[in-house]
Amino acid sequence: MDYYGYRGFIARILSSLGLEPGDYVRIIKSNGLVIEGILLPRYSLVDEPILVVKLKNGYNIGIRVDESDVLEKIGRVERGSPGAPVPLAESIEVGDKHVFILGCGGTVASRIDYETGAVKPYISPEELTLSIPELLKYASIDAEQLFSILSEDMKPWMWSKIIDETAKIISRGYDGIVITHGTDTMSYTSAALSFAFHRGLPVPVAMTGSQRSSDRPSSDASFNLVAATLVASNAPFAEVTVVMHGESSDTYALAHRGVRIRKMHTSRRDAFHSINARPLARVWPYDNRIEILDWNFRKRGDYSLAVDNGFDEKVAYIKHYPGPIAEIIDILVDKGFHGIVIEGTGFGHVSSDAIESIRRAVESGVPVVVASQTLFGRVNLNVYSTGRKMLEAGVIPVEDMLPEVAYVKLSWVLARTRDLKDVRVMMQANIAGEMSLRHDLNLYPRWVYE
Amino acid sequence: MDYYGYRGFIARILSSLGLEPGDYVRIIKSNGLVIEGILLPRYSLVDEPILVVKLKNGYNIGIRVDESDVLEKIGRVERGSPGAPVPLAESIEVGDKHVFILGCGGTVASRIDYETGAVKPYISPEELTLSIPELLKYASIDAEQLFSILSEDMKPWMWSKIIDETAKIISRGYDGIVITHGTDTMSYTSAALSFAFHRGLPVPVAMTGSQRSSDRPSSDASFNLVAATLVASNAPFAEVTVVMHGESSDTYALAHRGVRIRKMHTSRRDAFHSINARPLARVWPYDNRIEILDWNFRKRGDYSLAVDNGFDEKVAYIKHYPGPIAEIIDILVDKGFHGIVIEGTGFGHVSSDAIESIRRAVESGVPVVVASQTLFGRVNLNVYSTGRKMLEAGVIPVEDMLPEVAYVKLSWVLARTRDLKDVRVMMQANIAGEMSLRHDLNLYPRWVYE
Repeated sequence: MDYYGYRGFIARILSSLGLEPGDYVRIIKSNGLVIEGILLPRYSLVDEPILVVKLKNGYNIGIRVDESDVLEKIGRVERGSPGAPVPLAESIEVGDKHVFILGCGGTVASRIDYETGAVKPYISPEELTLSIPELLKYASIDAEQLFSILSEDMKPWMWSKIIDETAKIISRGYDGIVITHGTDTMSYTSAALSFAFHRGLPVPVAMTGSQRSSDRPSSDASFNLVAATLVASNAPFAEVTVVMHGESSDTYALAHRGVRIRKMHTSRRDAFHSINARPLARVWPYDNRIEILDWNFRKRGDYSLAVDNGFDEKVAYIKHYPGPIAEIIDILVDKGFHGIVIEGTGFGHVSSDAIESIRRAVESGVPVVVASQTLFGRVNLNVYSTGRKMLEAGVIPVEDMLPEVAYVKLSWVLARTRDLKDVRVMMQANIAGEMSLRHDLNLYPRWVYE
Repeated sequence: MDYYGYRGFIARILSSLGLEPGDYVRIIKSNGLVIEGILLPRYSLVDEPILVVKLKNGYNIGIRVDESDVLEKIGRVERGSPGAPVPLAESIEVGDKHVFILGCGGTVASRIDYETGAVKPYISPEELTLSIPELLKYASIDAEQLFSILSEDMKPWMWSKIIDETAKIISRGYDGIVITHGTDTMSYTSAALSFAFHRGLPVPVAMTGSQRSSDRPSSDASFNLVAATLVASNAPFAEVTVVMHGESSDTYALAHRGVRIRKMHTSRRDAFHSINARPLARVWPYDNRIEILDWNFRKRGDYSLAVDNGFDEKVAYIKHYPGPIAEIIDILVDKGFHGIVIEGTGFGHVSSDAIESIRRAVESGVPVVVASQTLFGRVNLNVYSTGRKMLEAGVIPVEDMLPEVAYVKLSWVLARTRDLKDVRVMMQANIAGEMSLRHDLNLYPRWVYE
């Protein structure tokens, strides 16, 4: 049954209530959310239980409904009557693109719990869209909540679910995807998506979040979401990016490559920065402007969808420090971890007494990958005697890759092969822009002490 | 026996050879180093086997000798004769301060090993002083090699040896101490010294190192050593600092507080930066100028020497990541670690499934301290539900303290008390400037992408 483009139970309900496009409807969702607007015909793009209404502010919105939601007719407005909504073209130019917002929790979708005073994630993407109508300037929005967690709880199996869901959404033909996610581990998830989609992403995937919850006046949720929607709908690059405030004021956002990003501050709006790389673009969300900073990107539409999903959950990620690091490596190997990423000191060093433990790990088939805890710069194990001994023991140095990204990548690689030679080749190949051969000096931030 | 201020075997050798101040002498050290100069009387400050000679370039230098070194008279120059050295006052003004350089290895005291091509640490502080006569502009230099290791091999028991040695040197009355150290773990050692001397440091302890070995033309060893010597001899503050290049060019160095510093780049000269704090001073080594940036310091001479040495070697320092962090915490507790420092995500979070492991750790007497992997900003466990549960489980959040410093501090605290209440009080007290109540916004670097 097709009823003005609607199918399934929505088509049945609409026809049984005699509702038609042009009717004022009230939707009372089972979570208490009430939305009123004028019923519109369904976009035919996706076959999802989504009802499309035009809100009083002139925007169109897709509302996910289920059979327990209540739908009422509250009137009908004839074209031209005083109560009729302003025709679309005369109100605000609604973007002709289609963007899907996939909600994965985090502060961007959270509110203060007035019982405990703490912040909990429980706003649906639809509620978000309703509260930020500027989103619709660039695209019509469909939305779905996949997880409602704080991102410290994110695990590799959840990356896989996000990747599967993203692939499904892309295959339906959207112009881009926005993924809302907690900021704490957003960079781990963005790296996971980058590797999983490295062979084929036809449209942009823009992850975003916020440092302050969306019901606080100082929230950055709205700014970031609009910027991410602009990237998803209109960016020329089809890459996994993290789109967040570029400065603390509401000027521009930055679209960072998913494998180059790090949260560098606990609370600032401009906490996210690219390390050892230039962001892909500067994004002015209220100005419909995307300024490309790195032209070496994969173009929208150049690749068709290809997914390489799956992560090994038994990977250890440790930081080298002056303590009993050899003992810790031994324990991890004995406990059956499949791989170890070490944040070495400086050029990627470990203490000499840990080299035997590394050799033992490698000999028992556990790859040991080394990045640097300095974050900036490049691992180089050829300069000092320690490094040469580490190489001889079998470590895999990973150039200028961020240690967090090395961890995500090793988890991804180990889900494809456990063969040490293959692991080495894959870890040292630049798969999703996670490494580069050289940097210019400007990639180091300016440390100004005033 | 006192022979022109010399004592012990040096006095015996000098008198048996009939050597007197004014004689040209050649010292052939057992490591092959040959030094020629005019014998001077010994400064009476310390009772050490040090021979003082005036070099051809007009500088005075103290050379540590032992009984296996060969000492020869190669001539005597009468005052006023053509071969006589230029009198001190007419050549270069040698500083009237006394500085001790304590060598602990690292690149600053390393050379390329032409056999393997790698860099190994084996230059003595005396050789360093000889090759950098500018040091003597600020002070007469005595020197000693305590360790000749690369700093990735530094362990807490070595911190203790450095601290003991530093205390001995201070008690002899020097105006300041320079400690040369590898850059990889210098910030850990500087934090250890800061805690051990928090109750009383009468003179500056300036740690320094270099990112490129001193026999390379691009070495920063000379610049950094001169800057550190200027701080040790003349700074108004008696604190443990790390003195390193402030910019990549040879303009100024920065004197960072030992508990606020981090190596942020694998190879740049300006790799060291203060996090969440202003450096104590900007230092122009070739210009005899120290510009104070933070006036809230402990003044030279305000405190008499007091040492609080000793570190627990059984402390784990881990980084939170989306993997099996609960399992790792359980393992560490089972393996008998005395304390755990976690680099949490964002405001200091761990995943919900790790909270039970933390509770178990705390209940079995293992303190769990939380800092943030973002490095910048401040831990706050009151904002999100996860944080509140962590507090309830007994974690100790440590404000804006760097995670590396939290690890050093917990090692130091656990060597004083294992009582959880006392550990909490000490970890949360600002002991050596490792925490501050508030920051101004300028403490975040400028991220410029050009």
